[in-house]
Amino acid sequence: MKHVKIGLLGIGNVAVGTFRTLQMNHSRIERSTGISIDIIKILNRSPEKDRGISVAEGVYTQDPADILDNPEIDIVVELIGGIEPATEYMARALRNGKHVVTANKAAIAANGSMLQNLAVENNVMLRFEASVGGGIPILGTLSNALLSNDFDEILGIVNGTTNYILTQMTEYGLDYDDVLKDAQEKGFAERDPSGDVEGIDVANKLSILMSIIFGLRVPPEDIPTQGITSITKDDINFATQFGYKIKLLATAKKKDGAVECHVQPALVPFDHPLASVSNEFNAIFVRGNAVDDLMFYGKGAGPLPTGSAVMGDVIEIARAIDKGCAFDSTPVLKEYDDVAYAGEGKNKYYLKLIVDDAPGVLGKISSAFGKYGISIASMMQRPALRTPESSVPLVFILHEAERNVLDTALEELGKQSYVSSVSSVIRVEE
Amino acid sequence: MKHVKIGLLGIGNVAVGTFRTLQMNHSRIERSTGISIDIIKILNRSPEKDRGISVAEGVYTQDPADILDNPEIDIVVELIGGIEPATEYMARALRNGKHVVTANKAAIAANGSMLQNLAVENNVMLRFEASVGGGIPILGTLSNALLSNDFDEILGIVNGTTNYILTQMTEYGLDYDDVLKDAQEKGFAERDPSGDVEGIDVANKLSILMSIIFGLRVPPEDIPTQGITSITKDDINFATQFGYKIKLLATAKKKDGAVECHVQPALVPFDHPLASVSNEFNAIFVRGNAVDDLMFYGKGAGPLPTGSAVMGDVIEIARAIDKGCAFDSTPVLKEYDDVAYAGEGKNKYYLKLIVDDAPGVLGKISSAFGKYGISIASMMQRPALRTPESSVPLVFILHEAERNVLDTALEELGKQSYVSSVSSVIRVEE
Repeated sequence: MKHVKIGLLGIGNVAVGTFRTLQMNHSRIERSTGISIDIIKILNRSPEKDRGISVAEGVYTQDPADILDNPEIDIVVELIGGIEPATEYMARALRNGKHVVTANKAAIAANGSMLQNLAVENNVMLRFEASVGGGIPILGTLSNALLSNDFDEILGIVNGTTNYILTQMTEYGLDYDDVLKDAQEKGFAERDPSGDVEGIDVANKLSILMSIIFGLRVPPEDIPTQGITSITKDDINFATQFGYKIKLLATAKKKDGAVECHVQPALVPFDHPLASVSNEFNAIFVRGNAVDDLMFYGKGAGPLPTGSAVMGDVIEIARAIDKGCAFDSTPVLKEYDDVAYAGEGKNKYYLKLIVDDAPGVLGKISSAFGKYGISIASMMQRPALRTPESSVPLVFILHEAERNVLDTALEELGKQSYVSSVSSVIRVEE
Repeated sequence: MKHVKIGLLGIGNVAVGTFRTLQMNHSRIERSTGISIDIIKILNRSPEKDRGISVAEGVYTQDPADILDNPEIDIVVELIGGIEPATEYMARALRNGKHVVTANKAAIAANGSMLQNLAVENNVMLRFEASVGGGIPILGTLSNALLSNDFDEILGIVNGTTNYILTQMTEYGLDYDDVLKDAQEKGFAERDPSGDVEGIDVANKLSILMSIIFGLRVPPEDIPTQGITSITKDDINFATQFGYKIKLLATAKKKDGAVECHVQPALVPFDHPLASVSNEFNAIFVRGNAVDDLMFYGKGAGPLPTGSAVMGDVIEIARAIDKGCAFDSTPVLKEYDDVAYAGEGKNKYYLKLIVDDAPGVLGKISSAFGKYGISIASMMQRPALRTPESSVPLVFILHEAERNVLDTALEELGKQSYVSSVSSVIRVEE
């Protein structure tokens, strides 16, 4: 019986989920692999706090060196989160000849390539399946079984918090602020939710996905990113009436050596498979030149699903250790200097204007759009509850237009006396 | 640059798709892996026929020995299909120390365990990703990234032909026979479609899935199997009115050491993710004790998607050859003597009876059901187009009942003078 020993950095939700996953399935894993995998050290700064797990004497430690410099430990599992000190801990572990598994999307998006190079230099493995898509085994699949493809498109719902909020707003017709509060109470959103609701978490994950799928390095801060904080229940209601759901999408398309990528809310038609991805579930769509459309769907967050992904990586490394074979040293996070960015291209857009409820306004707006070659696919006018009595929302689905042309048209419209505000502009994903 | 050489057995659709996938992505694969993978021999009994691919001189051969006994060939790819001579060819290749990749669900379902043992004995690898779910990399993912889980449920749409037929019947309100003919003309169904429409193909795939996921050997002939040949457009229409789609489902549940499995049409609620899986697309749902619900969706058939899966296995083996490390010898197809079968358990059922259009009939039927403790959840009565004027279809959704109790009740009802026929009994999947 081979033994492989793990040190866990951190004792938050994902660490507890990892511990539990291993505990539940220890014998099964032993039977399948012939390896006994055991957590022998856990970094826990507050050992008096009850985490709901029962841990043997001597496992908890308050000193990272007990893990990072411990000759008995084969694999370091980093579950602290955030860029530092996590990156420094992982680098130290790799330099000490230890394999590293992490769930840390921020650290990998920022420093993954550097860490990968360290892994190669030290002949050890770095794995980060849990950093994208929670329990969904997307990265491993893309890096292995789907190597036979060239991919040109990625589309995904990869943040459980925002998808939960949007689903609840849609199902119950509630305001964003009310749902956010409820989400925080239920544990679906953090006390400081900005990383999720502003789209930063999604940008980190999209950066990692593009690196693996396209072989292109796009730092998360270079991805045009917009979260869900300006989505109103009226937008959701209008979208529903047009036959769409609103989802926060990560999208990336590769065309002619350039990449178009963004994180933004989008209108998704009801019959699109992504429309049925609800609450904390995630889904990732890829299109390959042989496999065609492929979608992975599952729990994007949560202690056990994420623990499942962490343990999946641990088992993969344990089996490689057991085989004694050369570790997989193919770097998967590429560093390229020249990435050409394509613009948003032509899309249909949902648009909401607050305008004067007066004769001739619609005609003026239509002419204003026409001047820019923008035409109207659908339109709706309904009385509003919250605008002054003389104003009314006009909601449009516009035919395909270039975003910059639309922005210019909207800038001009916004200056007209009959337009109170340009309230929402949301891309339509077909 | 490492070179790995392939021999292809067969030159049908999947072989052409494999050839094309490699051709399209040869440089990309070389860049990612450092390996040049090349097909040097193809078994082709009719080389004069144009397959739409251009193949170098000397590659086609009419003698299997040119591949199976060829010392230059590292990996044999079996794409002939059917149990024999495919099994014999694969066994010979393995005994000759060659790795084997296949798409052959019938041969693997029948002889997979024997072939796996041969692979282990000869220290080579056997892979069959393409045998289940076409391009969807389901088997590899279950065997690797998801080893951290214990699974208790599998649910899937795994046959493109039948899903195409049911989708077309549903979207266009057509008869089964008309859609089958159209499917054959379009290449979505074979000239002899029985392997698909009778559910045999699905039973083979479910057998393989249960072996890998549950570690239980259930021969395909032991899986209660029913195809789609008795689904009528009226059933589909009624199901739609109740809020369901009809899909051919492979299901397997593990409970208390026993397994319940079957292949049968089922009513699937509109909002179930499987309901949106249309035409030739497949989807496989699994539930693991850590990862929770997971679904994989993609093209279950077609030359390029299947070629993608075949080449995925080829690349995995090529990398193992290149690493020179001990091959993955963990058998994944288990052979167990004692598999306890659980019955169908309690389910809701859709039922269609053709009855006399006369007073009191509904009351008698309701009482007859009541006698067996079966109660009615929903009911519909509509005039029929194709029954004699004095008969009418009555369509029910029954509350949860044991299948054998229901069958007994239906046997009794079938004998009543006011019942012309018990026309359809379809399980409801919730």
